[in-house]
Amino acid sequence: MDPDQRVETLSEAECRRLLGTVPLGRVVYTEHALPAVLPVAFRVAPDGRLVLALRSDSTTARALDGTVAAFQADLLDPEHRAGWSVLVHGRTELVRDRAELAELLRDGPRPWVGGQTPVYAVLTPELIGGRRLDAAPAGVGPEPS
Amino acid sequence: MDPDQRVETLSEAECRRLLGTVPLGRVVYTEHALPAVLPVAFRVAPDGRLVLALRSDSTTARALDGTVAAFQADLLDPEHRAGWSVLVHGRTELVRDRAELAELLRDGPRPWVGGQTPVYAVLTPELIGGRRLDAAPAGVGPEPS
Repeated sequence: MDPDQRVETLSEAECRRLLGTVPLGRVVYTEHALPAVLPVAFRVAPDGRLVLALRSDSTTARALDGTVAAFQADLLDPEHRAGWSVLVHGRTELVRDRAELAELLRDGPRPWVGGQTPVYAVLTPELIGGRRLDAAPAGVGPEPS
Repeated sequence: MDPDQRVETLSEAECRRLLGTVPLGRVVYTEHALPAVLPVAFRVAPDGRLVLALRSDSTTARALDGTVAAFQADLLDPEHRAGWSVLVHGRTELVRDRAELAELLRDGPRPWVGGQTPVYAVLTPELIGGRRLDAAPAGVGPEPS
């Protein structure tokens, strides 16, 4: 391991906590037999599901209705080479329940690309993993010679 | 379209230019039959290929040797809902040419997670696409009533 860096595998609980600290992630799904990656606004629901805000006319919304997708979020500081990245896999469905939809339209995340009334997909996490990279605190590295 | 936002589909040339402005992206590949997404340091080579810096002991390096992968980079400003996202698909290979490898070890990007001598994968773009979302400049929106 690099003496100036520390890589930490994150617990599922820590992954879930970190996901709640950022407004955007990237959903990965299959489109025309190729992986598509799209930034989306999201929120972690109290029950742990991820609520993704999508444009109603987007192909993404259709692609995420009843499939298995991946979702990635990170917060990275290239200058200091510190940060974290979390990856989630799970089943996604569009939200159709009227009460849930009404509540999301009132208080839910807004799609990253605005415009029409949004639609929402929920991803139920089945696998969650992540890692954190910390630059060593100043003074911990080798002494200058 | 939201009157306060503008979505622009980017030309391939603009996508290539934007890729050259960020030090990190996310490579998407298949691991255990599931999509894996990993932040990686990268550089756009003069010939347009993407050079990805990886840890020599990483499963990612092995997974990217002779496959088709996706690579995504973005620069997003959640507060102002502005930014861009670019997605590239192409064939990836580990760099084995001695001269090319020596040059990369001297001047190439360093892996995001440091440590051992890096290995490099090159992705030859076959499909490139992206979009930009701009918040409207102040004063362009509807006049306050």
